Amino acid sequence: MFNFRIKHKAQNSQARTGIISTSHGKINTPAFIPVATQATVKALTPIQLEEIGFEAVLCNTYHLYLRPGAALVKKMGGLQKFMAWNKPLFTDSGGFQVFSLKNGLCEVNDDGVTFKSHIDASKHIFTPEKSMQIQRKLGADLIFAFDQCLALNADYETTKKSLERTHAWAVRSLREFKRLNKDKKQALYGIVQGGRFLELRQKSAKFISSLGFDAIGIGSIFGDPKDESRKIVEHTLKFLPPGKPKHLLGIGAVEDIFTYVEMGMDTFDCVLPTRLARVGYIYIRPESGGKPENKFRYRITTSKFKSDKKPLDGHCDCYVCQNFSRAYLHHLFKAEELLSYTLATYHNLYFFARMMREIRESIEKDKFRELKRKWVK
Amino acid sequence: MFNFRIKHKAQNSQARTGIISTSHGKINTPAFIPVATQATVKALTPIQLEEIGFEAVLCNTYHLYLRPGAALVKKMGGLQKFMAWNKPLFTDSGGFQVFSLKNGLCEVNDDGVTFKSHIDASKHIFTPEKSMQIQRKLGADLIFAFDQCLALNADYETTKKSLERTHAWAVRSLREFKRLNKDKKQALYGIVQGGRFLELRQKSAKFISSLGFDAIGIGSIFGDPKDESRKIVEHTLKFLPPGKPKHLLGIGAVEDIFTYVEMGMDTFDCVLPTRLARVGYIYIRPESGGKPENKFRYRITTSKFKSDKKPLDGHCDCYVCQNFSRAYLHHLFKAEELLSYTLATYHNLYFFARMMREIRESIEKDKFRELKRKWVK
Repeated sequence: MFNFRIKHKAQNSQARTGIISTSHGKINTPAFIPVATQATVKALTPIQLEEIGFEAVLCNTYHLYLRPGAALVKKMGGLQKFMAWNKPLFTDSGGFQVFSLKNGLCEVNDDGVTFKSHIDASKHIFTPEKSMQIQRKLGADLIFAFDQCLALNADYETTKKSLERTHAWAVRSLREFKRLNKDKKQALYGIVQGGRFLELRQKSAKFISSLGFDAIGIGSIFGDPKDESRKIVEHTLKFLPPGKPKHLLGIGAVEDIFTYVEMGMDTFDCVLPTRLARVGYIYIRPESGGKPENKFRYRITTSKFKSDKKPLDGHCDCYVCQNFSRAYLHHLFKAEELLSYTLATYHNLYFFARMMREIRESIEKDKFRELKRKWVK
Repeated sequence: MFNFRIKHKAQNSQARTGIISTSHGKINTPAFIPVATQATVKALTPIQLEEIGFEAVLCNTYHLYLRPGAALVKKMGGLQKFMAWNKPLFTDSGGFQVFSLKNGLCEVNDDGVTFKSHIDASKHIFTPEKSMQIQRKLGADLIFAFDQCLALNADYETTKKSLERTHAWAVRSLREFKRLNKDKKQALYGIVQGGRFLELRQKSAKFISSLGFDAIGIGSIFGDPKDESRKIVEHTLKFLPPGKPKHLLGIGAVEDIFTYVEMGMDTFDCVLPTRLARVGYIYIRPESGGKPENKFRYRITTSKFKSDKKPLDGHCDCYVCQNFSRAYLHHLFKAEELLSYTLATYHNLYFFARMMREIRESIEKDKFRELKRKWVK
């Protein structure tokens, strides 16, 4: 089951609110989707995630395929049951992770990708069909077509060739998906590629749009350099069907979220708030000095916080900020206590959940521009 | 503020229920006290501990003295505020940890103990007075006198000498405690030592009882060999004032708890359920096959649990058992996910909290013997 309804469109930008409906419930958009790589958002229970206010998470197909394996997850009743997350769930296609493998662990041809496991160096093959089969077994509500990811600095010829492959794989992904998805349990996102070339992005946007995916993702936007990334996304969006939900893969910097919400993007996934939490980076709101220059964060492990009685963020109303001091978090990190990861992750994700809630509210009140000015000038 | 009231005495044993009252609330006894070494029960939030049902935790003075330091904790408003645990709290004296240091990191004389930090090898001295001063700054409700700990196999002469020192330190601990505790905020446990020699234990019990501590701890009982440990505790208890709360330091095996509750012990602290959780040992109830022979536990990391749909313990009603399978926990441990520590710790502590609740209920219904038979035959 899948449906997307646009609730409200901003008057002076492309920003919009909407609701993605799945058989596991609804996602209010624009939404930030935390990453649960190995069927867990690191250091948090599903109850804590719900308490923070998230309506969906995204798991990584590459990791789950290798361990514990898609067949096992299926036997356990699917990912949602396995990880006790009874809400909407995304899986990615496995492509990005496979193409991120270093040291010659990955070889690509038109059929698919041969790669070696980062766990035991065993050899595996992903094809578009295989990715669909794995994602079917994992059983997420929202899944992605198998694509080839390139570095943003790849040259025109390389990007063009790769794009042709991605398009052929999109067709094969969709065909296999339709064969498997007779019960309409899942929805499939096509992915637009094309590197840093506006002409290729335009071509890709048109082609992917023509295939009739349920929704569209934009891939290989790495946030930097910001101007170039923005131009690419803005240009791409002109050629995508306005009525379909659009996901920006791997984007999660605060400024980027404001930029791309304004352009009409609906969902974002990124490991930034969770990964940075585990090395002690704490997000702070604009009222507390968060701004693009400091990337809305500071590092709690710095010695100046050793005896700081204040909460992580004086303007945050999360469980962590209501109960613990910077000094306590500093202590937990210095003592390498497991609770440090839980509390920092909790706070950072709360920061994102609340920011997205405020973004949605501002759009519906036609005040998104004001909110954006407050956050990123 | 400190008070102990015996609620109910068993008819055919020394088992009893009671209530220890402190300025941070009450502890229903017999109680198991989880260990929060560095001001955190590893991998759990204070809210989760409350949810599990604990009324008190115990922090380690040695660790907190070294990091973050007692003065800092005091500045932060005391341990309870620092760690957001607004319930009764114990600290130990630091003695056990100091005497457990290996590789010549510890030297003792009649004045106190010189030791090197396990963190940076810096040199420190603990004396009875210093231990009281540190514990005062940390600010727990229930604190312990500074004593010398010995291996249970120490010979008579060594044990006798050490006991004389422990007794002199008990007098000094109490004197310093009284000087610091004019506001009656804290209560002090004296500690009985005497190794494996009944005669010395008896002497110690009488001497410590004569000093007028608020409560009594029994130290250096390591659980094994069981018969010897039992005889020592049983003999010791004959010479302790029945109306005072009695704590058995470091004891936490299921059978031992039943044994010593039956003898009249009121509280226990032990790292066993939490430490074992982090390497994948899962406690199970007798209805699920838990028994002295398997130490009421199994190891979830064993490959036979890879695709086991059952909960950790089919007769457990904790959050973990209500929501997750053995296969999921197995996966989390294999993938070295942080959530593995949280969920396994949660379950193991719930096992102990519920067992203690059942013990208390059975005593009040004069059915402790029946309960004990069910658990340990």
